[in-house]
Amino acid sequence: MSEFSSIGLVGRQDNANISDSLNTLADFLLRRSGIKLVIDEAVSSFMHDHKAYSEMQVIPQKDLHKHCDLVIVVGGDGSMLKVAGSLANQDLPVVGINRGRLGFLTDIRPEEIESVLGQVFDGQYKEESRFLLNVSMQRAGKTEQIGCALNDVVLHPGSAAQMIELSLFIDEEFVYDQASDGLIVATPTGSTAYSMSAGGPIMHPKLDAVVLVPMYPHSLSSRPVVIDGNSEIKIIVGDRHNVMPQVSCDGSVEFTAEAGDEVLVSKKAEKLRLLHPIEYNYYATCRSKLHWSKRFGSS
Amino acid sequence: MSEFSSIGLVGRQDNANISDSLNTLADFLLRRSGIKLVIDEAVSSFMHDHKAYSEMQVIPQKDLHKHCDLVIVVGGDGSMLKVAGSLANQDLPVVGINRGRLGFLTDIRPEEIESVLGQVFDGQYKEESRFLLNVSMQRAGKTEQIGCALNDVVLHPGSAAQMIELSLFIDEEFVYDQASDGLIVATPTGSTAYSMSAGGPIMHPKLDAVVLVPMYPHSLSSRPVVIDGNSEIKIIVGDRHNVMPQVSCDGSVEFTAEAGDEVLVSKKAEKLRLLHPIEYNYYATCRSKLHWSKRFGSS
Amino acid sequence: MSEFSSIGLVGRQDNANISDSLNTLADFLLRRSGIKLVIDEAVSSFMHDHKAYSEMQVIPQKDLHKHCDLVIVVGGDGSMLKVAGSLANQDLPVVGINRGRLGFLTDIRPEEIESVLGQVFDGQYKEESRFLLNVSMQRAGKTEQIGCALNDVVLHPGSAAQMIELSLFIDEEFVYDQASDGLIVATPTGSTAYSMSAGGPIMHPKLDAVVLVPMYPHSLSSRPVVIDGNSEIKIIVGDRHNVMPQVSCDGSVEFTAEAGDEVLVSKKAEKLRLLHPIEYNYYATCRSKLHWSKRFGSS
Amino acid sequence: MSEFSSIGLVGRQDNANISDSLNTLADFLLRRSGIKLVIDEAVSSFMHDHKAYSEMQVIPQKDLHKHCDLVIVVGGDGSMLKVAGSLANQDLPVVGINRGRLGFLTDIRPEEIESVLGQVFDGQYKEESRFLLNVSMQRAGKTEQIGCALNDVVLHPGSAAQMIELSLFIDEEFVYDQASDGLIVATPTGSTAYSMSAGGPIMHPKLDAVVLVPMYPHSLSSRPVVIDGNSEIKIIVGDRHNVMPQVSCDGSVEFTAEAGDEVLVSKKAEKLRLLHPIEYNYYATCRSKLHWSKRFGSS
Repeated sequence: MSEFSSIGLVGRQDNANISDSLNTLADFLLRRSGIKLVIDEAVSSFMHDHKAYSEMQVIPQKDLHKHCDLVIVVGGDGSMLKVAGSLANQDLPVVGINRGRLGFLTDIRPEEIESVLGQVFDGQYKEESRFLLNVSMQRAGKTEQIGCALNDVVLHPGSAAQMIELSLFIDEEFVYDQASDGLIVATPTGSTAYSMSAGGPIMHPKLDAVVLVPMYPHSLSSRPVVIDGNSEIKIIVGDRHNVMPQVSCDGSVEFTAEAGDEVLVSKKAEKLRLLHPIEYNYYATCRSKLHWSKRFGSS
Repeated sequence: MSEFSSIGLVGRQDNANISDSLNTLADFLLRRSGIKLVIDEAVSSFMHDHKAYSEMQVIPQKDLHKHCDLVIVVGGDGSMLKVAGSLANQDLPVVGINRGRLGFLTDIRPEEIESVLGQVFDGQYKEESRFLLNVSMQRAGKTEQIGCALNDVVLHPGSAAQMIELSLFIDEEFVYDQASDGLIVATPTGSTAYSMSAGGPIMHPKLDAVVLVPMYPHSLSSRPVVIDGNSEIKIIVGDRHNVMPQVSCDGSVEFTAEAGDEVLVSKKAEKLRLLHPIEYNYYATCRSKLHWSKRFGSS
Repeated sequence: MSEFSSIGLVGRQDNANISDSLNTLADFLLRRSGIKLVIDEAVSSFMHDHKAYSEMQVIPQKDLHKHCDLVIVVGGDGSMLKVAGSLANQDLPVVGINRGRLGFLTDIRPEEIESVLGQVFDGQYKEESRFLLNVSMQRAGKTEQIGCALNDVVLHPGSAAQMIELSLFIDEEFVYDQASDGLIVATPTGSTAYSMSAGGPIMHPKLDAVVLVPMYPHSLSSRPVVIDGNSEIKIIVGDRHNVMPQVSCDGSVEFTAEAGDEVLVSKKAEKLRLLHPIEYNYYATCRSKLHWSKRFGSS
Repeated sequence: MSEFSSIGLVGRQDNANISDSLNTLADFLLRRSGIKLVIDEAVSSFMHDHKAYSEMQVIPQKDLHKHCDLVIVVGGDGSMLKVAGSLANQDLPVVGINRGRLGFLTDIRPEEIESVLGQVFDGQYKEESRFLLNVSMQRAGKTEQIGCALNDVVLHPGSAAQMIELSLFIDEEFVYDQASDGLIVATPTGSTAYSMSAGGPIMHPKLDAVVLVPMYPHSLSSRPVVIDGNSEIKIIVGDRHNVMPQVSCDGSVEFTAEAGDEVLVSKKAEKLRLLHPIEYNYYATCRSKLHWSKRFGSS
């Protein structure tokens, strides 16, 4: 008997070329006895032609926990980022299938669906708890919830080729004033994403820490700063003529700030329950995705 | 007798706090016998109250060369960038007065106006030739002039938190495809500006070279590339859903590109004739502005 | 009454210009009633001429805990590094006086001896627990203790201009093979020292983490990796003709390795009890020592 | 008829696994009519068993120009570096065969010997002129020649884990005082070697420039500086207790310096005449050796 008997499939509406993976996956799941299949709207739009479509229940993403005990995300790390907050809120374990190349978060390849997912259903998997960042904004004494992020929160100029000014506080202690292209606040999960392009360190997923990476700072001595994961981060937006900085969560613009706004970033209480194949190894993923085995000219 | 007898004053309309420097400067110039003063509109707006305002001729910037043989820019490096292309076209020597802190381009402090400018008028100065970059755009077989830049040409996403894709060619040779936040093409003059924040090297102003600096590239092995100053650079804008990359010259957005557009960057024929105080030294400016004398903790 | 009644003074024999600070310090301490003074050999060598020299007891560093309840280090961060392991073993709190410029570890200036040390004696201080790294070496089945480090453990070629090869394991998981100039393993305390010059991030002292920084790696995609402070790090020395890599602790060469040697680095059980002035603030020290307030050209 | 009729083969005595390539090469050369073969001692040691060994003339490397009109280096970029100075002095064109993987300097693969070398003999090749750096040392008024380098001259501490201090002058102008692990002076040819690991930019081989790259400088605002290739570089060795900095040319230690020594680096008059296959393209080599085509995770 499977550890999981009711499976939710989620995806992204803008990712048309996941149809094949979805059909293979549905076929596999339906062949296993006692598996019930629920799908969200995005997946539904790609599966009307499946012979067993009528047996699948279409459920809004936020209600998945009422109908299934495991979620499978199809489509790549970007798809996982889109649903991470919702799945964390529902305390639902999730496993990711990555069409094409390996992802950091979606580490099952389409051709491994049968073998690896079979193991997962049989209880052969590694479960990780990945924390998210919560972002809120304080203006004129009022606090407003903005969003949450599995990878990173970024404060950047709304339109490009402009500088922003900000003041950074950690746990109410003043850190620095900065003139730059922006500031990245990244989790260990996000440390191999945008933060890494910007010069941030890799942080092991088990580390309870957050990194602050200045983007093209005007001071040459600014460096990434790694702080405790439970820190309260406050960024006060500076006053520069005509610049309206934006706050992005995992790459989606969520808020346009004004001078004086306080952007608050801290750990979200609910964690993402991320399942990996049993043979998953973080450093192996790094070696593969970051080409660590490659030295100069070893082709 | 002065080497220069007719002086043009130029500035920026948005820089209200240059009035003091302008008045001090005008007083000094008018005290010298045989000096004629012409001003552009920006400067004119700040000098209506000067007692000798009626003796000053207001001239459009592009016609300065018909009326003066030296131009003085008041206001900082940003003001110099604004007029560099026009002054290069007119083959007019220029010297910069920097309100407040020293600039890389405007290296006379307000308190030095009398002593240092006096030397310049007496022929005691260093003249440098600084080259600019010319930018044009090719779409559907048509070429359009976009602008010129003394510091840098930057291709970047129109709105932030997006990636752009581009193909780079130098002298018709393919260099690389790149997914990144953009690409900086900088002159030696611009190598101590935005390019430096992005990890580019410092290039001595006498060097006939251009540096290409990828901005947060997705490939970790991308590096700044320094090429001959006479190279023809072609950037073909890639095709990404909803992204409209912009081209900036010295920080001003000049053009919004579409997929398939070819952005062409090459050396502008006309050079900027930049005058420095006789005791000017490039490395001394670097030491001062980049705090090279400072080691960790030497306060 | 003082919280501390018996004070040990330690220093470095090679630091002749600390005599003034030592004498001022001794005068101040002896003026306070009920304070007993013990000194180590290094300090003893500078204080023979002090009028109360006969009242001071000269004690070997390792026995300080039997004779005093607070240690004062005079001389700079380097002096603190020299005694950190010994003081951690003895569970003795320590405060540092820095001749000249501010240190990260020794943050009392000579001119503040009376005011700030007075506060410390009155119980007005901040106590921090700083962890050290323990290094041992495994060869042919035998394990040998090598040393400990408050800042960093560095594996590097014995003589310069050579490359070393190593294999890195963390908690028995293979991380990578690396060809480079070496590898730095740094604590949060060491993150503002050598590791920072090599591109490592700043890590807040409260963070329970260690950073691994590759030195000039041959692979361009190698990055600093931050891992949990309780990780077991194993570096297997590779086989390269004629290269005998050395292991340094806080800058002192402690061991010369051979191909096949396993260098083991892990957290030392005993922590350093570091006292700071009550108004101490980590970020303020960063701002001061790293010149964070300085932007380009703001002189 | 061949453009080259007398061919010299050179190699390195410490590279035993080049025998196969040498034999294949010799066979190919001897099959072409009218080709005379001369070899240096290193190659001679590997070819005693060749059936035509008696027809080959063994010539000291420095006299090759008297006996041949083209030199072939077998063994990789390191082998080319070893002979570059000597071949430049003799004005002898050289082409490189790289056992195993592609090199930046030795760009013919063993399996291409017949096809590509055939083209070269038929006059189908690209010739590049690569400049070298000349290093001399001034002590107590006397100047001594130290060596020359195709890639880089490096000043570094003789033994590791130490800091050196130096003062840098370019064309008699003071640039900076620096405390660091050393200083790299690299040519465009060397810009893809050690200099790149240390953060230096890539410089196109046609660029007449030299880059100065500080190694782990104590000042966070030190950056690589690119200067004109004809500059006279002077490094004055600072005075630090017990540190004897060494000067390396292309990775070989050539000289041990004392405090006060002046190390002089400038362009060597004689250039290396480097031949490439006709389809050679610099950027293609970069893409291949630096994995520019690789984005994160594109495996």
